[in-house]
Amino acid sequence: MNRSGLLHPELSALVARAGHTQTIVLADTGLPIPAGTPRIELGVSAGLPSLLDVLSAVLGELVVERVTVASETRQHSPQWHARLLDTLQQAPDRITHDEITHDALKASLPGALAVIRTGEVTPYANVILHCGVNF
Amino acid sequence: MNRSGLLHPELSALVARAGHTQTIVLADTGLPIPAGTPRIELGVSAGLPSLLDVLSAVLGELVVERVTVASETRQHSPQWHARLLDTLQQAPDRITHDEITHDALKASLPGALAVIRTGEVTPYANVILHCGVNF
Amino acid sequence: MNRSGLLHPELSALVARAGHTQTIVLADTGLPIPAGTPRIELGVSAGLPSLLDVLSAVLGELVVERVTVASETRQHSPQWHARLLDTLQQAPDRITHDEITHDALKASLPGALAVIRTGEVTPYANVILHCGVNF
Amino acid sequence: MNRSGLLHPELSALVARAGHTQTIVLADTGLPIPAGTPRIELGVSAGLPSLLDVLSAVLGELVVERVTVASETRQHSPQWHARLLDTLQQAPDRITHDEITHDALKASLPGALAVIRTGEVTPYANVILHCGVNF
Amino acid sequence: MNRSGLLHPELSALVARAGHTQTIVLADTGLPIPAGTPRIELGVSAGLPSLLDVLSAVLGELVVERVTVASETRQHSPQWHARLLDTLQQAPDRITHDEITHDALKASLPGALAVIRTGEVTPYANVILHCGVNF
Amino acid sequence: MNRSGLLHPELSALVARAGHTQTIVLADTGLPIPAGTPRIELGVSAGLPSLLDVLSAVLGELVVERVTVASETRQHSPQWHARLLDTLQQAPDRITHDEITHDALKASLPGALAVIRTGEVTPYANVILHCGVNF
Amino acid sequence: MNRSGLLHPELSALVARAGHTQTIVLADTGLPIPAGTPRIELGVSAGLPSLLDVLSAVLGELVVERVTVASETRQHSPQWHARLLDTLQQAPDRITHDEITHDALKASLPGALAVIRTGEVTPYANVILHCGVNF
Amino acid sequence: MNRSGLLHPELSALVARAGHTQTIVLADTGLPIPAGTPRIELGVSAGLPSLLDVLSAVLGELVVERVTVASETRQHSPQWHARLLDTLQQAPDRITHDEITHDALKASLPGALAVIRTGEVTPYANVILHCGVNF
Amino acid sequence: MNRSGLLHPELSALVARAGHTQTIVLADTGLPIPAGTPRIELGVSAGLPSLLDVLSAVLGELVVERVTVASETRQHSPQWHARLLDTLQQAPDRITHDEITHDALKASLPGALAVIRTGEVTPYANVILHCGVNF
Amino acid sequence: MNRSGLLHPELSALVARAGHTQTIVLADTGLPIPAGTPRIELGVSAGLPSLLDVLSAVLGELVVERVTVASETRQHSPQWHARLLDTLQQAPDRITHDEITHDALKASLPGALAVIRTGEVTPYANVILHCGVNF
Repeated sequence: MNRSGLLHPELSALVARAGHTQTIVLADTGLPIPAGTPRIELGVSAGLPSLLDVLSAVLGELVVERVTVASETRQHSPQWHARLLDTLQQAPDRITHDEITHDALKASLPGALAVIRTGEVTPYANVILHCGVNF
Repeated sequence: MNRSGLLHPELSALVARAGHTQTIVLADTGLPIPAGTPRIELGVSAGLPSLLDVLSAVLGELVVERVTVASETRQHSPQWHARLLDTLQQAPDRITHDEITHDALKASLPGALAVIRTGEVTPYANVILHCGVNF
Repeated sequence: MNRSGLLHPELSALVARAGHTQTIVLADTGLPIPAGTPRIELGVSAGLPSLLDVLSAVLGELVVERVTVASETRQHSPQWHARLLDTLQQAPDRITHDEITHDALKASLPGALAVIRTGEVTPYANVILHCGVNF
Repeated sequence: MNRSGLLHPELSALVARAGHTQTIVLADTGLPIPAGTPRIELGVSAGLPSLLDVLSAVLGELVVERVTVASETRQHSPQWHARLLDTLQQAPDRITHDEITHDALKASLPGALAVIRTGEVTPYANVILHCGVNF
Repeated sequence: MNRSGLLHPELSALVARAGHTQTIVLADTGLPIPAGTPRIELGVSAGLPSLLDVLSAVLGELVVERVTVASETRQHSPQWHARLLDTLQQAPDRITHDEITHDALKASLPGALAVIRTGEVTPYANVILHCGVNF
Repeated sequence: MNRSGLLHPELSALVARAGHTQTIVLADTGLPIPAGTPRIELGVSAGLPSLLDVLSAVLGELVVERVTVASETRQHSPQWHARLLDTLQQAPDRITHDEITHDALKASLPGALAVIRTGEVTPYANVILHCGVNF
Repeated sequence: MNRSGLLHPELSALVARAGHTQTIVLADTGLPIPAGTPRIELGVSAGLPSLLDVLSAVLGELVVERVTVASETRQHSPQWHARLLDTLQQAPDRITHDEITHDALKASLPGALAVIRTGEVTPYANVILHCGVNF
Repeated sequence: MNRSGLLHPELSALVARAGHTQTIVLADTGLPIPAGTPRIELGVSAGLPSLLDVLSAVLGELVVERVTVASETRQHSPQWHARLLDTLQQAPDRITHDEITHDALKASLPGALAVIRTGEVTPYANVILHCGVNF
Repeated sequence: MNRSGLLHPELSALVARAGHTQTIVLADTGLPIPAGTPRIELGVSAGLPSLLDVLSAVLGELVVERVTVASETRQHSPQWHARLLDTLQQAPDRITHDEITHDALKASLPGALAVIRTGEVTPYANVILHCGVNF
Repeated sequence: MNRSGLLHPELSALVARAGHTQTIVLADTGLPIPAGTPRIELGVSAGLPSLLDVLSAVLGELVVERVTVASETRQHSPQWHARLLDTLQQAPDRITHDEITHDALKASLPGALAVIRTGEVTPYANVILHCGVNF
């Protein structure tokens, strides 16, 4: 058993493999993931695990520079959006965030290192992590 | 997206493949899983997802006749044991349960159809599901 | 054995993997499926299982927004077309349907998540399912 | 599309590969299939396709000398047993049948060439086919 | 052992998988088969098996609408060409045939479902089968 | 295209890999080949190719010390047995032959380097080749 | 890039997969690793990386209860043995250690979860890690 | 052991698979082989085996119409060039040869059926074989 | 154990496979490596092993003509740059070096034979090796 | 291109992987290699490459403690045996040799790390290398 807070072997390996500027996407259960993009399935049932719980765990282990979310989240899922900002503020790194449209977010998926599919069932609740380095 | 309450593709396939009397094991994060036994990794971080949350989701979809737990759980993890019994009572099937020693439970793992590893961090918190049929 | 009504492991996993707006195609036994498109073979003999029986089973488990059929079906296989509409009306979701030409339907196959090949032997009897989410 | 009445590619290949005295098992949806035994999944939903419909299709293409069923079928599923005998009589070959206990049937599965899992939901409804040759 | 006359497992599976309008190519032993095209090797020694013997066996099992041969065959291998026409006339389906240049035939190979390589050693003796359906 | 008379790539590789005293079995279409034994499928239809035609081609390329046949062949398939002796006499090596029972022949299959399945449909017509070296 | 101090993806995944009482072996470059035991190759050149540098990194991430070393190390490589004890004392867990003969250590390798091969070139310098849990 | 003079299983299979006009390249040990091109490694140490020794062995088994070499060989490796011509003259087929620049030779490698890498250490010593048929 | 100073099996094989003008990249732990580029993971923890230690080991075994580094290294990591030049001067070959921008270096990665990821944590510390031959 | 004298990638990797006391077998072209033993094919044609040429190349890179040969070699292939002793004396290590019967040598093959098959055509000419370390 590892000590770092991230118990999932493939997730640990993914985090260790991520290079500077590469992206890892945390997805709700409905995001259409392209066939060629690697995926890690975490979703068990509706809301389990939630995207933000997974995000907290990942941010404890992965160096992240910036996150991108769909601009639709602020309007359609304002509470989730607020909790996302809280989660980012509690991260060990100072993480900026920006927005693109949900369509642009979906169009960026083929370039992602991997998509982590959670049990999240909140509309538009997907987050692109831009990986960083600590040197 | 499926309607049955079980969002995980490999988990759904496992449940669909399980034959009468075959066993599926829900495991805490520390159970020593033999190299040849198929495993599905669900654990993200300590306690996420909990074994009982995963059990509830699985019982909603898998026909189960009986569960087996380590006899050590009643003494060392009595609260978890009580919540386990609650979870079983809320299942759609009438499920009996019995106990074996933790050592016997570990010795049975090579014969399991698969082990589902959760984020559970309660001592001895593992459950063997004996699969049933509804005809 | 699972409880959801869909007994096939690969089919269960496919349904659990399907994202919003992705397509799954139910095919008669003669549809030319492109080499790179994943396929699930269900057809045993002529008419077994029928496409509509498989469709009923899938609609019980997969959230579907809309279906697309070849416009040729209404003219060349009117009885099958009528039974298809009945099947859609008995689905748990409200499902709209539209039509494209058979040639356009064939041209869309490389983008499908998978093609499910049934034993159907009715001319033009193929259905594109546009997957939805329930949140 | 092939002309022989058996539309399923893996099933066609299995039939073509079967040697004299080797066994192929047709199973209901609940038979516990050993991990190392090849399996072909045909079951879509409860009863679809039925074992006897699949048997008819297979007997049209595979040379079979003899079938073995569980002795429990005659008592617990007498109607199914009667329909099985009808199906065997309509086969192109003269096929004898014998009985073993359900436990003995399950114990023989590791030696089978493959198990074909149908949607059958009748208790004890499994059939061992002993393959023959026509020369 | 199967009853349909086609004893080869991969060939049986190929025939069962072929969709309407897809092509299967029967080749002499020297046709340059592109690296990405699936191939089934049947050729044992010069002339064994001959392409026309394989064609007869395949036509007994595969529904074929039309065949295409190189226009060079009529001039350079007239006897083989005549025997090909005989073979087509004895097929269960009514099969039309047309001609393209040998270069066009070679250029079409990347789009074929598979190439079946025989032991044929007659110049230009290759046949494209255009698969049909019987409904 | 190779010059040695053996056109089949896997067969050529098998012959090149065979060590002194290892066995390669030429089989009729009904021999029950164990699951773990490598097999090369050559059989197309009943009698095509015949075992003896394949044997002639193989003997032209493989150094063989001795062959073993089922003792049943002499009684049940005397004509085939006579033609087998002719074929052996025309081989480039001096090849001795001996007999074992058909049951012993089947029991030896798990130790074979590979089984080559032909289209032969003569009862008991199987031949074990004991590979040699020419130095 | 991950934050936990262990940069190697397969090593991170191995640590995350290790169950209570399972063993991971850190090996010098000459240990005879059995063919069936998973191995992670880290050794680049003589002494790079050293086993103790790798051990420090692993102990920062893996929960370890106990280590086992060959009893030969104290006599033949006393300085390395002393540095090993130092390394263990600086680990976050309290780790006990015991000794077995080098032959017994080699005999235990088939049961290890994995062997991590370093660039160590000190005689008998191998360490068995007995994995623990922190709950 | 085979009789044809070519002892290498993959090489034998490659020769048996080669179609008319396809190319096989014999390479010195330094030729930059593209990642996607199949390769057979024969080189053991400097000069072992030499390209011309391998060429002699291959020409004894593969039907070759023509070879292409880099025009640089005549000037930079004239002795090797002369020995190449000798080798070609001793081949069973009448083989023509032509020249292209070394850069053009390297640019043609992605289209080759395979590259056979020898131990040759003579500058520019690479040969493209254009495969033929003997019918 | 090998004698050449390079103990890592995949690294040894990579060096043996490298052709003239092909590139191998030594990378710090944060370089974004494209998904399709082969990678060898050597990094254990921050600085272990360092890129220059790995470079020394590789230069002892691989023939290198030239290296390319990011022009940013001279300004942002001047000490590392100086040590790199020292390392190159101690190599058995005379190795020239040139510079490109870090962006151009990243853009060249898809064409590399492989990327070797070290534990280096110095900004911009990546080196492209242009492979040579010694004949 | 590597500098160590061993140009073959798989051979280089094998040498780098070999642990103390593990065995690598150099074989003539006729040794019956068990199906489960890894093999590296080097033999091109009769005598090319010879076993002793390969042995010289391997001894230049692999640390070897001892070799074992068949006792039959001294009597049946005395010249080869003498040249073997010469080759061993020119090796960088001091290598002892012992003898076992050819049957015992063949019986030891399943335990070998790998068998390297050369083009050697001298009777009984096989050598077991017992790998060593240089620390």
